Amino acid sequence: MKNTTSFYLIVALVLLTQINGYAQKHPIAFSTAADIALVKKNISVNPLVKQSFDEIKTSVDAVLGKDIDVPIPKDAGGGYTHDKHKDNYNLMFNSGMLFQLTGDVKYAKLVKDLFFKYAVLNPTLKNHPQATSSSPGRIFWQALNDANWLVYAGLAFDLIHDYLTPAERAQIITGAFKPEVDYFTKEITPWFDLIHNHAVWACAGVGIVGIATDNEDYVQMALYGSKKDGKAGLTAHLDGLFSPNGYYNEGPYYTRYAVLPFFLFANAVNHAKPELKIFERRNKILKQALDGALEQTNLDGGFYSYNDALKEKTYISNEIVVALNIAWEVYGANAAYLPVAKAQNRVTLSKGGLGVSQALLQNKSIAPFYPYKSVVFTDGANGNMGGVSVLRNGKDKNLTSLIFKYSSHGLSHGHYDKLNINLYDNGNEILQDYGAARFINIEQKYGGRYLPETKSYAQQTIAHNTITVDEKSHFNGVEAVSEKHNPVPLYNKVGDFAVQASSALDTNAYQNVQLHRSIYVVAIPGADKPLVVDLFRTIADTEHQYDLPFNYIGNVISTNFKYTTHGSAMQTLGSKNGYQHIWKEASAKVKAPFTTFTFLNNQSFYTISSHVQDSAQVFFTRSGANDPNFNLRREPSYITRTRAKNMLALNVVELHGNFNPISEITTNSYSRVSSIVPVVNNDLYSGAEIIIGGKRLIVLQSNTKFDVKTAHQITINGISYSWEGPYVVYLENKKL
Amino acid sequence: MKNTTSFYLIVALVLLTQINGYAQKHPIAFSTAADIALVKKNISVNPLVKQSFDEIKTSVDAVLGKDIDVPIPKDAGGGYTHDKHKDNYNLMFNSGMLFQLTGDVKYAKLVKDLFFKYAVLNPTLKNHPQATSSSPGRIFWQALNDANWLVYAGLAFDLIHDYLTPAERAQIITGAFKPEVDYFTKEITPWFDLIHNHAVWACAGVGIVGIATDNEDYVQMALYGSKKDGKAGLTAHLDGLFSPNGYYNEGPYYTRYAVLPFFLFANAVNHAKPELKIFERRNKILKQALDGALEQTNLDGGFYSYNDALKEKTYISNEIVVALNIAWEVYGANAAYLPVAKAQNRVTLSKGGLGVSQALLQNKSIAPFYPYKSVVFTDGANGNMGGVSVLRNGKDKNLTSLIFKYSSHGLSHGHYDKLNINLYDNGNEILQDYGAARFINIEQKYGGRYLPETKSYAQQTIAHNTITVDEKSHFNGVEAVSEKHNPVPLYNKVGDFAVQASSALDTNAYQNVQLHRSIYVVAIPGADKPLVVDLFRTIADTEHQYDLPFNYIGNVISTNFKYTTHGSAMQTLGSKNGYQHIWKEASAKVKAPFTTFTFLNNQSFYTISSHVQDSAQVFFTRSGANDPNFNLRREPSYITRTRAKNMLALNVVELHGNFNPISEITTNSYSRVSSIVPVVNNDLYSGAEIIIGGKRLIVLQSNTKFDVKTAHQITINGISYSWEGPYVVYLENKKL
Repeated sequence: MKNTTSFYLIVALVLLTQINGYAQKHPIAFSTAADIALVKKNISVNPLVKQSFDEIKTSVDAVLGKDIDVPIPKDAGGGYTHDKHKDNYNLMFNSGMLFQLTGDVKYAKLVKDLFFKYAVLNPTLKNHPQATSSSPGRIFWQALNDANWLVYAGLAFDLIHDYLTPAERAQIITGAFKPEVDYFTKEITPWFDLIHNHAVWACAGVGIVGIATDNEDYVQMALYGSKKDGKAGLTAHLDGLFSPNGYYNEGPYYTRYAVLPFFLFANAVNHAKPELKIFERRNKILKQALDGALEQTNLDGGFYSYNDALKEKTYISNEIVVALNIAWEVYGANAAYLPVAKAQNRVTLSKGGLGVSQALLQNKSIAPFYPYKSVVFTDGANGNMGGVSVLRNGKDKNLTSLIFKYSSHGLSHGHYDKLNINLYDNGNEILQDYGAARFINIEQKYGGRYLPETKSYAQQTIAHNTITVDEKSHFNGVEAVSEKHNPVPLYNKVGDFAVQASSALDTNAYQNVQLHRSIYVVAIPGADKPLVVDLFRTIADTEHQYDLPFNYIGNVISTNFKYTTHGSAMQTLGSKNGYQHIWKEASAKVKAPFTTFTFLNNQSFYTISSHVQDSAQVFFTRSGANDPNFNLRREPSYITRTRAKNMLALNVVELHGNFNPISEITTNSYSRVSSIVPVVNNDLYSGAEIIIGGKRLIVLQSNTKFDVKTAHQITINGISYSWEGPYVVYLENKKL
Repeated sequence: MKNTTSFYLIVALVLLTQINGYAQKHPIAFSTAADIALVKKNISVNPLVKQSFDEIKTSVDAVLGKDIDVPIPKDAGGGYTHDKHKDNYNLMFNSGMLFQLTGDVKYAKLVKDLFFKYAVLNPTLKNHPQATSSSPGRIFWQALNDANWLVYAGLAFDLIHDYLTPAERAQIITGAFKPEVDYFTKEITPWFDLIHNHAVWACAGVGIVGIATDNEDYVQMALYGSKKDGKAGLTAHLDGLFSPNGYYNEGPYYTRYAVLPFFLFANAVNHAKPELKIFERRNKILKQALDGALEQTNLDGGFYSYNDALKEKTYISNEIVVALNIAWEVYGANAAYLPVAKAQNRVTLSKGGLGVSQALLQNKSIAPFYPYKSVVFTDGANGNMGGVSVLRNGKDKNLTSLIFKYSSHGLSHGHYDKLNINLYDNGNEILQDYGAARFINIEQKYGGRYLPETKSYAQQTIAHNTITVDEKSHFNGVEAVSEKHNPVPLYNKVGDFAVQASSALDTNAYQNVQLHRSIYVVAIPGADKPLVVDLFRTIADTEHQYDLPFNYIGNVISTNFKYTTHGSAMQTLGSKNGYQHIWKEASAKVKAPFTTFTFLNNQSFYTISSHVQDSAQVFFTRSGANDPNFNLRREPSYITRTRAKNMLALNVVELHGNFNPISEITTNSYSRVSSIVPVVNNDLYSGAEIIIGGKRLIVLQSNTKFDVKTAHQITINGISYSWEGPYVVYLENKKL
């Protein structure tokens, strides 16, 4: 009896949809019939397409004919039911693709059978028993994962659309999709209408289901928000989640994650509503986002690890495969992508994926790396919320990248790290950002979630290569406050110059202390590697304690000062704000005006040389204290602690020399920097004299006027220096 | 006046040599004229030969025409004069090769000019100012390095022999060579006559100079010792430095180093005195030595790091390139070497090198890895000083290798590690040997020498995966005592079997405690990876403290017991014998009969499951305490401490599951071992029952009778077990 009622209801719904006039040809969401035909033709002749096809076929064939479990939701991330439902949506999409590519109905039937099970399960679901967030899921513990399910299930439905009878469609739409879509758009509507990457997934899910099921209501909500007013939905996300040059405000690790639903949904929209020209929107913002994500990777493809990030993630991730393949189709062939595509060694079975694989096949001289270049990213939808500068030097394997971060907070995954720097060289991390503490998807480790040490250590200021004042993190570690502010970029000159410069001022991280940092990457003539000159000013009315760490990775080789190791009993550096997680392995009091510390990373030497103002304490530390579940890595840091009112911290990072343990040959293992002296430091100007290889390097900057045309003149030690623009660098009295 | 006298003296000497009838055709030491002609012809057609030639040519051409420094010896390893003299001997050899291969006399002249400088310098030298060892060098701080110089300078002389006038030859022989050879053979004669790898170099140097300068006296001393009685020299080294199946007693890291002078000198002897059939000696012992070294590498080519070893060294080292290329010539083509040669990507410019490069060119399907197999190495010249068993399972990237070490001490580079095990899996170190503490050739780190922590930590028993009794190292850490003893192998069954076994007994490491360890590598049907079952018995009359560490590499994932982390203040585990270098990060008292500890290494999970006898303490530790110069790595260990008289430590290492952080998919992250119980433990038999995946695995062994034909019968829990041979393994009552 109930069944009969349902049936009529369903038929009515289906008729209604069709009367509405939104019926499309299918497939259309992931790929069109014409594109599918093209891919099909190439499977046998293109090895990478064949391989990608075989991978999918092998995985689906392994479960064909088996009764596939659609369990009642129970476990958190990494647990059985979580992984099973994740497997299922991938399986449905893959089997749908196989149906299209082979024409074999067994693949369509597999998808249909699974859909019928979800059509039974989904209407029964309430909030997931393991839900802890403010946006609980139903099939999964987080609504975000349910959105993932909607995206892939929607694509799968579209792929088998024409195989299903109208009644079957109606049954699936009502049972499997409607409860999820209604939950998103009617129950957790504020979450659905956020300008946030989770909502991008939610809109993609609802929108793709809309396109797959010919439901224009869904599509409109997904494009323009639940109220269809354009204040939410895909269009608002495209306008509000990236800066004008494609920076995504949670940082590169999350850019990777964020671009996937953007590309998948925009691709479906582009097929269904080409008139929207969605990929052209905002000066091709999706291309800029993808390129920005790639530009922020290390040579091994790993995303820069600032903000919450897992270092294991690289651009071979599925998200970037999909985005790159779609970009290839909609934005045209791009040789810059080929080194990435080659490393991915996998393509989507789409027109773009085919194009990429053909290019890989035809191109005999693919560059070894993505064509990394120096770049300044602005942050904020209007580009006025600070930014990130990447100063680069060298080519290919020899690339040096200095990342200077003066962006806004970055939502819940942001760190308290104003004016932080990170350094990569030769494909290695040299001065690191810890990233996040998390074992993604390993159930034993807190269900695969972010571990508590992410908040208590990794996000705290002391875990970063920037100044902590009075042992308190920036904004006292309060996200809501940090979200309101960002440092101000003062000047940037980055690119193919002998001196690259980036300077920024923060006036909000501490109420009574301003932080002003200028980074110069100087190509010294004749040297293999650049010199990083770091002028870090603090401006305050009273005395404070300034801790400036260099979270180096490597082995201690030498110092020019004596230190005491705490050999038999070790204490923490402090008791809160991240300090409780840091062991004090060694400490020193230095009065000498000049300290050097050399370490070895892989086969290269790095020396941090510093000017010491009056006296300072130096600590060699290691993370891992108060870590009851062994969640933290044991990582070293070199921290200089100064008590002062106004301070000018002068540090030089020298990249030098080579150690080859196989041939047992060592070159240039000693630093060439022999002295660093401040030559001016007042409200108007700061400057340093650095002796390197016996030569005098002078760096002078204005602290107030940053216009490139403004003329400056100052006299130091009887010598007059005059220049135009915010700074000048001399080597032996010759401007660089 | 002096010059004139010298001249007549020289002529007389040269005449004397020629009258002696030892004049050879040159070149003959490294390569013959016919071989050179063959290589020459192939430079233009063989890319790898061309590349190797170009490398040498580029390096030599860079200094051609410059005045090359031959400085007065002053610096230790890694210092300027050390590196310069090392550069010089390589340069002389390379330039000599170029003279032969191009016929251009400018290369010969470069060598001659350098020789003339050494002919002036060498007669003036006394012991090196930085010499600290009992065998001081002259050009270098160690005589060993002087021997290196003699080898390459000898080869270089031979290459330009015919370019030099008799007078020039005499001048070089008298000035450059004679002081060094006399120093070796007349002053530090006991060192020259040792059966030791340093003396192999010394003999190679003297012998090659002999062959190059037609001095049969030198050659005889080099072949048969300074007394020419066969008790020293190359022949004694061939007979005494390797076990009958090619094991070199300092371990694989030093095998690499040891084989080079053997191959270089034997190669020269083979050219000059083919009638000696030196490469056939002792059942082709040099081939066995090379193969043994390769067999003891990880998938990345890194030598197993037991005994003093630097983990950075791999088989792409020059030593192995030279040995492999000569072996190819004298022992014939060998496909097993090709994966190694491919990784080396370099050949010697000799007939063997040419053969290797041609094989690389022609062979389109080179295996990805050396064909590793399970192997039992005996130790000692007669093979009766214990040994090392390598138990392997799996193929290619999936290879699992368990190394069980019951060899003799291994000279000055040996560790106090009787019955140690190491585990490698998927090309990663899982249970490690620390190796040595050393930054080779980095002057700032103690002149590149072994660091004091090598002795105080790395060589101590607690740094190894074997039992330390009462916090004292084996043999109380006294090398002279350890050198006298070795464990006794009880049985070995290794190879392509479902159960591989190796068992050994040590009765000397401790006066009152015997150590008996049996390792079983069990391929469980249906499982991807093998199970390692480890029965470690101690036999004593009184109670002792037994510490058994597992020096795992990885992240702590979970335990089945609670532990206390020492979060804010950390102490060392002890105060001597290596314990002073170990931080106690966490500890636990366990009374449960069964403990498990799971860790993640790269993308695989490993679980150590243990039976606890009564109660035990467990420590999670980390090296790096009392390390005043940051010489030690910070490495974790999992140590179980038991107080008992006789103990049967039952441990199972399970290799399971996979974690892919890129696809975010985790499989089998939980151990399948749910119980371990001793079922018998007395003087006659020991045995364990292990429940894995719900199935009962029984391991039984005889403790007294090891003959493969001896029948055994015992009854456990009413079930009777009977078998032949030293052990039996049942799965669910079925013999494996």
